[in-house]
Amino acid sequence: MIKEFDDLIYNNYRIKFNNEALLDAAMTQASYVNEHPDQNLKFYQRLEFLGDAVYELAVSTYIFKRFPKLPEGRLTRLRAAMVNEDSFSRLAKECQFNKYIRLGKGEEEAGARNREKLLCDIFESFIGAVYLDQGMDKVVSFCKQVLFPKLDEGWFDEYFDHKTDLQEKVQEHGPVDIEYHLLDEEGPDNDRRFKTSVVINGKEYGEGVGESKKDAEQNAAKRALKVLDNDE
Amino acid sequence: MIKEFDDLIYNNYRIKFNNEALLDAAMTQASYVNEHPDQNLKFYQRLEFLGDAVYELAVSTYIFKRFPKLPEGRLTRLRAAMVNEDSFSRLAKECQFNKYIRLGKGEEEAGARNREKLLCDIFESFIGAVYLDQGMDKVVSFCKQVLFPKLDEGWFDEYFDHKTDLQEKVQEHGPVDIEYHLLDEEGPDNDRRFKTSVVINGKEYGEGVGESKKDAEQNAAKRALKVLDNDE
Repeated sequence: MIKEFDDLIYNNYRIKFNNEALLDAAMTQASYVNEHPDQNLKFYQRLEFLGDAVYELAVSTYIFKRFPKLPEGRLTRLRAAMVNEDSFSRLAKECQFNKYIRLGKGEEEAGARNREKLLCDIFESFIGAVYLDQGMDKVVSFCKQVLFPKLDEGWFDEYFDHKTDLQEKVQEHGPVDIEYHLLDEEGPDNDRRFKTSVVINGKEYGEGVGESKKDAEQNAAKRALKVLDNDE
Repeated sequence: MIKEFDDLIYNNYRIKFNNEALLDAAMTQASYVNEHPDQNLKFYQRLEFLGDAVYELAVSTYIFKRFPKLPEGRLTRLRAAMVNEDSFSRLAKECQFNKYIRLGKGEEEAGARNREKLLCDIFESFIGAVYLDQGMDKVVSFCKQVLFPKLDEGWFDEYFDHKTDLQEKVQEHGPVDIEYHLLDEEGPDNDRRFKTSVVINGKEYGEGVGESKKDAEQNAAKRALKVLDNDE
């Protein structure tokens, strides 16, 4: 592999491969292999197959432990939000993996390097290679650095319906009264801000702001869920 | 948990839980928890969420290493055949897990104990608990004993189209001539046996028998794939 990429993953993630051919394969598309038939290269697809399962388990274990009260349905939705093409392609770019993919000329010209599907595949094949070469502990430490913090940065929020989650949660043991109160709105029409609170059985559990009433309510529900999760 | 079940998993799989509450939860349905509100019990769903990802990775790793030349598409199909409700519910029964599920009375009377979906869930929650309590190595040794051998016993054959697999494999690098020859048929009409061979570019790669020509051809293709996989 290009020395620059070795340096990048060592400097940023303290990953140093024993078997460099694995890392090579993880970053190589079939089109490149076909253009260099003499080099006996491998391409990334098999490692991607493995990497997908590796992320599934790493993420599952993390959210299972981090949210000890979260019911299965919400865990499943959260996992699906974290392990998917959209989030992985963004992460691949953030990690600058796109710069080091080995592509055939035709694919390069067709703009494959920045295609979401390929970026996602490479993000998976990379972790498949890390898992084989370095084991699950190194995978987890990479995820702790790169993937898990995105949860707190709100990356996966758009996938959630916090109001539904809150309703499901508080109504587990029977019907409960949930109300959203508009507390404030300010700013000109083209830059308006709303502030709401969520009140459960007469007690306020959280406030939220947003550019629409709906956003403000979602944020209030999100806040209330956090309060309730910490309560238990 | 019932002492009998502890004994069963120790005697059969050498698994002894440190945290018995995990094993209890893995075998307990919500209906049972609801009937015993005083016991502060947990039910299996969260462990099932985790167990699903645990099997995915255990199976992925196994078939990735066992079939070093199998392309991603065939690996994915094989994994889907191994990790699914049908195979897991059969395995749960074979392991006698169905006897030890804790159900509420209504569910028991409704026959839930032998419902495929529940058996599959329990097979997953069990491995989720093993993974948390004992780690991945114990999971793998359980799979080696219980799940992986089914591959050689032909459990997953019906999910495969060996003829298509063979065609995909040999035509990777361009068109190839594949023929199936009927070699023999014998027995009375209601118990007929067919024998075929598969010939690739004029060379025979395998023979197969079956109760129909189609079955015999599938079996010949399966045999040829084995020969080719070992060849490489």
